[in-house]
Amino acid sequence: MNIVIIGLGNIGGSFAQAIQQCGGDHNVYAIDVDEEALHLAENQQLIKKGYTDPKDIIPEADFIIFAVYPRVIVDIIDQYYALFKENTIITDVTGIKRQIIAEIEDKLPPEVDFIFGHPMAGRENRGLKYASSEVFKGANYLITPTERNKKDNIECLKDFVRKIGFRNISEISPEFHDDVIGFTSQLAHVIAISLINSDDVDRNTKKYTGDSYRDLTRITNINEKLWPELFMMNKDYLQKHIDEFTFQLDKLSTAISDEDIETMEEMMKESRKRYHDLHDLDMPD
Amino acid sequence: MNIVIIGLGNIGGSFAQAIQQCGGDHNVYAIDVDEEALHLAENQQLIKKGYTDPKDIIPEADFIIFAVYPRVIVDIIDQYYALFKENTIITDVTGIKRQIIAEIEDKLPPEVDFIFGHPMAGRENRGLKYASSEVFKGANYLITPTERNKKDNIECLKDFVRKIGFRNISEISPEFHDDVIGFTSQLAHVIAISLINSDDVDRNTKKYTGDSYRDLTRITNINEKLWPELFMMNKDYLQKHIDEFTFQLDKLSTAISDEDIETMEEMMKESRKRYHDLHDLDMPD
Repeated sequence: MNIVIIGLGNIGGSFAQAIQQCGGDHNVYAIDVDEEALHLAENQQLIKKGYTDPKDIIPEADFIIFAVYPRVIVDIIDQYYALFKENTIITDVTGIKRQIIAEIEDKLPPEVDFIFGHPMAGRENRGLKYASSEVFKGANYLITPTERNKKDNIECLKDFVRKIGFRNISEISPEFHDDVIGFTSQLAHVIAISLINSDDVDRNTKKYTGDSYRDLTRITNINEKLWPELFMMNKDYLQKHIDEFTFQLDKLSTAISDEDIETMEEMMKESRKRYHDLHDLDMPD
Repeated sequence: MNIVIIGLGNIGGSFAQAIQQCGGDHNVYAIDVDEEALHLAENQQLIKKGYTDPKDIIPEADFIIFAVYPRVIVDIIDQYYALFKENTIITDVTGIKRQIIAEIEDKLPPEVDFIFGHPMAGRENRGLKYASSEVFKGANYLITPTERNKKDNIECLKDFVRKIGFRNISEISPEFHDDVIGFTSQLAHVIAISLINSDDVDRNTKKYTGDSYRDLTRITNINEKLWPELFMMNKDYLQKHIDEFTFQLDKLSTAISDEDIETMEEMMKESRKRYHDLHDLDMPD
């Protein structure tokens, strides 16, 4: 099978590494604007060959993984849709789904099957040099099938992502995806950015941090060319989650001001219970 | 030297382990209400002997580490202040300083030197069985000297905490301590609790989480018998930091609603810069 990875950054590179490691009779190619990254990947035998021009390899692809910004996916589909082979399976890694699906599905030739997906794995550092298949191990994978997708192809994609290390593979609707990701990923980023930006930089805070602050700000090494677009594409759900978070924050803040121990204890007991649920642990007495 | 650890939970047990590992000619004793924990620690030779009654060992102590709730420190000082040996050095691990110092200092006999401290290390799980000296390695330590403390004793405490693994040991005022800890620790806990409590539990969110959500909620396994007191003892600073955080959150939320890309990019670029400062990394172009 000819696999073409479009975008050989952190995520694209991690896919290349994971495919290499799990074996199988595949030719892996990559498309990127960064020739240096392509050469590096060729030298490391992560890929068989790299291309800067999509039209040189897209016609050969049986399976395409888009690991680029949403805008770039739309541009490439617009420009090269006529070059896709019949029965090519395509997937992506975009963090929001409703809008990207709406923009792309109508443009696809009927015999091409674009199954939208979202690996819940990634790192705070960008670029091929930080790529690692390790981040996929045991991570969650979300697939958002549409009416266009063939059942066999969905199974095929699920087999593939299971082979490269993902564990919980869920099929969910694009709407549910954007709702839950608006909470687990986007709200988390909004909070982390707001926290680190509310620091008083004159105080040299890093001398006084423990793990808590470092954990809560780990995702603040954020790509400002990608995330505003993701936030805007999901602003209805994201705004809802910000409001729900703010409600809880206000409630706790008021309890602190009022020295309302009972409410604080209740909220902490609830959070402790949820922590145990999240990590599949039994709650101690 | 006779070292007495009061409270043999996660932090007290980690101290015992760290002292054991760094050698030195010390007798380590512990006081706890939990006889089982004391026996376990004796069997593991973490301590020489455990006591449930403070008066049986306090008179022998050269160095006392309080690793218990703030209320318990005050109670023990109230009850046993007359039993401390001359020139005993005492320290604590409490997460707030102004109020505990105010409540304790006037009660101490003149020849006893209580140097208040705060190891910026700890874990989300309670109890001796989760104790580990590993969490101290390379962690920050804060000491808040007062006019009562002898310079030699402060140096002695600093040597001690350096030996058991801490790296950056800062001497700061109790006021500055409570201000900065209100930010790096307390605000972080307030945010984490609010985030996990704003989850919709019916949706089985854990199937859809990545590292972001797990990182931001790691500290939600919170002890509801300790933290309300810590929050209330520091509510002036904590409230200030909640307000500053809320200001940033509102600003980002408004930018998302208004699709104001410029403001979002600025805020993300700023957060990325701060991430690099925090981790002593050069900011890439």
